Amino acid sequence: MSYRIGSGVDFHQLAEGRELWIGGIKVPHTKGAVGHSDADVLLHAICDALLGALALGDIGVHFPDTDATYKGIDSKILLKKTVELIQKEGYKVVNIDSTLCLQAPKIKPYVPQMQEAIASIVGITIRDVSIKATTTEQMGFVGREEGLMAYASALLVDNRI
Amino acid sequence: MSYRIGSGVDFHQLAEGRELWIGGIKVPHTKGAVGHSDADVLLHAICDALLGALALGDIGVHFPDTDATYKGIDSKILLKKTVELIQKEGYKVVNIDSTLCLQAPKIKPYVPQMQEAIASIVGITIRDVSIKATTTEQMGFVGREEGLMAYASALLVDNRI
Amino acid sequence: MSYRIGSGVDFHQLAEGRELWIGGIKVPHTKGAVGHSDADVLLHAICDALLGALALGDIGVHFPDTDATYKGIDSKILLKKTVELIQKEGYKVVNIDSTLCLQAPKIKPYVPQMQEAIASIVGITIRDVSIKATTTEQMGFVGREEGLMAYASALLVDNRI
Ligand SMILES: [Zn+2]
Ligand SMILES: [Zn+2]
Ligand SMILES: [Zn+2]
Repeated sequence: MSYRIGSGVDFHQLAEGRELWIGGIKVPHTKGAVGHSDADVLLHAICDALLGALALGDIGVHFPDTDATYKGIDSKILLKKTVELIQKEGYKVVNIDSTLCLQAPKIKPYVPQMQEAIASIVGITIRDVSIKATTTEQMGFVGREEGLMAYASALLVDNRI
Repeated sequence: MSYRIGSGVDFHQLAEGRELWIGGIKVPHTKGAVGHSDADVLLHAICDALLGALALGDIGVHFPDTDATYKGIDSKILLKKTVELIQKEGYKVVNIDSTLCLQAPKIKPYVPQMQEAIASIVGITIRDVSIKATTTEQMGFVGREEGLMAYASALLVDNRI
Repeated sequence: MSYRIGSGVDFHQLAEGRELWIGGIKVPHTKGAVGHSDADVLLHAICDALLGALALGDIGVHFPDTDATYKGIDSKILLKKTVELIQKEGYKVVNIDSTLCLQAPKIKPYVPQMQEAIASIVGITIRDVSIKATTTEQMGFVGREEGLMAYASALLVDNRI
């Protein structure tokens, strides 16, 4: 068995008049995440963890924010393309763990839906997709609700042996 | 051998008139960490890494800060409960690596005691519990000594095969 | 096969009149990183991930910033020493994944050189060294270009079996 690990981190500003997409799900809130795509901080961190495990570059290399193709794009499409790259290399995902850092709103009620969305794209079960959440205890830009960030780690295994 | 990885991050404010518990050890300092429990940022990050590896939720789900049971609780008890959840799933911990980010005080003299405390609860040796420390070079809320944060990662293996 | 994981994070201030060393490469920029050594945030995070995987302490323990030996030192030397410690323990590196968080400049053009530099020291191929980059979307001390930070994760395997 040949394992590889990857890790990712992503940041987005929060602003009024934007939708808040997290983990492939639209979360009701007074603010949304700012970005070229749908600004899904959790899916972006996960994409980066998967790409990083195989040194395939990062999300900015594959889906540049200067490319009109990705304007407002659903990040689930980016995750799907990322998973295809992983599979093409002969690897599959063992498990994903992630942590969302945001001050508000509480995302706990949406976690099962997020797990479903991610698991179905990656081709794993919801027991293989962990989504944790924490505030930063009112500190920093996350604490002031200026933005949110997410960390993800992923374990991959060679599918061919 | 079936491996899983998990990662955790935690944040707490620092304030005068509180005790500073880190890694299960009381560290002498002019400020302490603020929280519902003993606010042990390192043990919380480790709990989250262990829970995350098996997608068992996060520390906020298992030990909610709205529950009076956990008011002022020793986080070593939370770690013990977390380890029991891992074992019930048939997994054991291979190794834990962690990094504490704080501007002051120097925690290096306390690291061996912290390793002992964690290793004995998790059921591993001190060579399987890494505790690293860094300042943030005076930057951000950690640099201004308003708070501290910790990162942890964990590798688990299926105990049944 | 006996695996271990490690993770590291490092922070440095940016200031005018300093060189900017990242991943073993000098990156042209108006500011450089401040530190006792060459302040290579990426190599420091990677050293910490490697040391952490085997609970060998952290970069501050092995290469203290109070030691004149390490004043202005090329961090590639620190990475080399770290790799020797890993090898002495009977382990080798499977893969390294890392993320550099900085607002400017764009480091993408330098990534292949950084991969080469790191791979040759660690004794792995460039396909085993991932370097990703992201801004923090103008937020926090990284967003204000006061500093930069890096995350690294590493998977090690026992070389003896
Ligand atoms: Zn993003
Ligand atoms: Zn906590
Ligand atoms: Zn450093």
